[in-house]
Amino acid sequence: MRHLIEPEDLTIDEINRLVEVGLDMYNNPKVYNKICDGKILASLFFEPSTRTKFSFDSAMMRLGGNVIGFADASTSSTSKGESLADTIKVMGAYADIIVMRHPKEGAPKLASQYSRLPIINGGDGGHQHPTQTLTDLITIKRFKETVNGHNVAFCGDLKYGRTVHSLIRTLARFGNTKFILISPDELKLPSALKRQLINQYGVELVEVTSMEDVIDDIDILYMTRIQKERFFNEEDYLKLKNSYKLTREKLKNAKPDMIVMHPLPRVNEIGYDVDDDKRAVYFEQAEMGVYVRMALISMMLEVGPYARS
Amino acid sequence: MRHLIEPEDLTIDEINRLVEVGLDMYNNPKVYNKICDGKILASLFFEPSTRTKFSFDSAMMRLGGNVIGFADASTSSTSKGESLADTIKVMGAYADIIVMRHPKEGAPKLASQYSRLPIINGGDGGHQHPTQTLTDLITIKRFKETVNGHNVAFCGDLKYGRTVHSLIRTLARFGNTKFILISPDELKLPSALKRQLINQYGVELVEVTSMEDVIDDIDILYMTRIQKERFFNEEDYLKLKNSYKLTREKLKNAKPDMIVMHPLPRVNEIGYDVDDDKRAVYFEQAEMGVYVRMALISMMLEVGPYARS
Amino acid sequence: MRHLIEPEDLTIDEINRLVEVGLDMYNNPKVYNKICDGKILASLFFEPSTRTKFSFDSAMMRLGGNVIGFADASTSSTSKGESLADTIKVMGAYADIIVMRHPKEGAPKLASQYSRLPIINGGDGGHQHPTQTLTDLITIKRFKETVNGHNVAFCGDLKYGRTVHSLIRTLARFGNTKFILISPDELKLPSALKRQLINQYGVELVEVTSMEDVIDDIDILYMTRIQKERFFNEEDYLKLKNSYKLTREKLKNAKPDMIVMHPLPRVNEIGYDVDDDKRAVYFEQAEMGVYVRMALISMMLEVGPYARS
Repeated sequence: MRHLIEPEDLTIDEINRLVEVGLDMYNNPKVYNKICDGKILASLFFEPSTRTKFSFDSAMMRLGGNVIGFADASTSSTSKGESLADTIKVMGAYADIIVMRHPKEGAPKLASQYSRLPIINGGDGGHQHPTQTLTDLITIKRFKETVNGHNVAFCGDLKYGRTVHSLIRTLARFGNTKFILISPDELKLPSALKRQLINQYGVELVEVTSMEDVIDDIDILYMTRIQKERFFNEEDYLKLKNSYKLTREKLKNAKPDMIVMHPLPRVNEIGYDVDDDKRAVYFEQAEMGVYVRMALISMMLEVGPYARS
Repeated sequence: MRHLIEPEDLTIDEINRLVEVGLDMYNNPKVYNKICDGKILASLFFEPSTRTKFSFDSAMMRLGGNVIGFADASTSSTSKGESLADTIKVMGAYADIIVMRHPKEGAPKLASQYSRLPIINGGDGGHQHPTQTLTDLITIKRFKETVNGHNVAFCGDLKYGRTVHSLIRTLARFGNTKFILISPDELKLPSALKRQLINQYGVELVEVTSMEDVIDDIDILYMTRIQKERFFNEEDYLKLKNSYKLTREKLKNAKPDMIVMHPLPRVNEIGYDVDDDKRAVYFEQAEMGVYVRMALISMMLEVGPYARS
Repeated sequence: MRHLIEPEDLTIDEINRLVEVGLDMYNNPKVYNKICDGKILASLFFEPSTRTKFSFDSAMMRLGGNVIGFADASTSSTSKGESLADTIKVMGAYADIIVMRHPKEGAPKLASQYSRLPIINGGDGGHQHPTQTLTDLITIKRFKETVNGHNVAFCGDLKYGRTVHSLIRTLARFGNTKFILISPDELKLPSALKRQLINQYGVELVEVTSMEDVIDDIDILYMTRIQKERFFNEEDYLKLKNSYKLTREKLKNAKPDMIVMHPLPRVNEIGYDVDDDKRAVYFEQAEMGVYVRMALISMMLEVGPYARS
């Protein structure tokens, strides 16, 4: 039995297969719409996240399966003092696979040690969110034909964003990606991660503070939110936030086949007028998240293309 | 692609067809129980309304479809500062059709401008609730054979009730209905609406303050709640509330084939002893709401009787 | 039409059949996985209980049916002042069967008097929880081959636990069970119940205060939680709680084929090191709860093995 707690639980070959299967599910959904018939996903959100929850619920339903679960912890048995281990053990009676989001780092890992069912980490605090990384990879594959071989820029808060760290690490495992890091000094990629990327994977890293300086060299522009509370004072925040906002104006110098990605929700780091530009693919990215989760569920339940012969 | 924001989005012919299809779904449910197989309804209730939510959920399931969604806004992404436009755009990735209830007037209209999916307004503040009107019309058709041609009385709070305004306006579009308005002076139908009904549709309107004066002339009696907080003082409220309560006693002078309708929930405006009278059809009315919503979902998804040839 | 409000609503023959059908559903789930196709369960939890809700939701889905409902009362129409009778009457429009949990004793009984649909009591206050009793019985049958004929010990809080009272009463109806009651003096089985068991059913009852004295004579050990707030002072609680905790050490003197049951959630009355002992069956017990509920739903909807010929 498999669990998915962090992207490293998957080999590059397995990720490539998930991306391939997910794309085939996107292109030929009817082939797969009954492969989870009779199966039940327990969708345990100890912390609310509508987007991730809907994505998994929709994925399971599009495979013909059912969903039970809760959208926040207030109605769960853990509020009666039950241990997470017991909650997870009992779940084995009610479902066939679990997706779990939890505010505490490490909770899904702990849960997997007691579980009779495969567990997918749907996000644990600021720690890991492996299906977001899979979503990013299938989106790159759909729009740029290959996962690697591109100049990938990350823009905004590169210090705290787990989404960014996880995707960079995984792309580094694939090799053959040039990373362009665009952020204010206050929000640069952590040095430890940079050293790891360089020493372990020998990646090429470019760090700049201005998007304009590099925009014409980017194949994939990954935008993130800059949160006010990361700054020491409001003045610094106000000064910086517009430098890291993507506008139609700034896009003028970008490659015609560049793509703009964002894990969503967006607040104001991408202007609404960018949405109509064909390079903006963040809503398609959300869509691809459903299909790669369909592939993942199939893999973990060993059904459809993953059925054991 | 179609949206249903207000009853005026539908022609009289379309309403007639929805009512016909809904009645056929009521009479022959098995014919339709797989026509939404594989489809997903996103049921987005930014404001709680169990009854409306259950009615849509049940309608989708009785067509063989699935439902994702939330019952109140607390767990939705909008609580993270996301715009309604983005929430709706992302929904396109997760579902095939949206029903949306929102406390703010105009929210569903706004949402429809950004949506890749058909949107049904499940109620926006005191503004519009078009599927309640469809529910009322299919109920009239079921019990009185035709939608128009009747003496229809509305009793209670005619000033604020969106349900009443919407049904009156739609019946006026059908023509050939005599309206009898029963309310205290404080809660009469707004003059602007009255003028519109007379000038635009030439309807016949009778206004009275006492149910007893007109009960023997009514074919359809539509009851509504009188809310205490609409009155300036408690004394007026207490004096009036019993005049607008339907009792078994008052029913004695009514036609034997009159029907009593109510959008529910009822508080105390219809005595419990009225429930056993065969003229009381408000629970059947709730039931018909499921079937007309089944017809509506089919129309908007272009499946079953609405499939494109 | 049938309701299940308390275990006494079922004859011994009916209980035996439910247990048999449930076991067959456990052994041959594929035979039954479409018998509720197109049916809808309304899962109305006016009080949260994830475990019971999931068990029913899973049961309905494993029969091929659908589920609508709420997990707590805050979003239900009763918060708008609607009577429970009206809420239940309207439910007839949306579903085919109801499971209802309510904090007020007697609420499901009241609801059943107004319902067009079969109602299953999913727990009403400290009163009744008949599907827990069915869960206990099917577990005994699975692991001990017969429901009766055993030495059954109940340990912990025997004064307040409705689960214990209900199971003892039902086993007494079956006859041929020896009851061993292990509890502190403060938490003994109520005298009235003891008298009833002896006078009406002639049962054999042994009362002790120490588990060690009887452990080698037990076939089925039913553990329950001891709640701190049941004691007059903390000192008494601390002194007692370890006496009624099951440990690996205490299990050494137990029969090799004894089984340990618990309605869950457990807090600390069973040591975690007991979980690996093959006599610990409380997680299997939770699992059997799904299957006996599947049997019950089938019986009440008259489908599958309960279809009318």
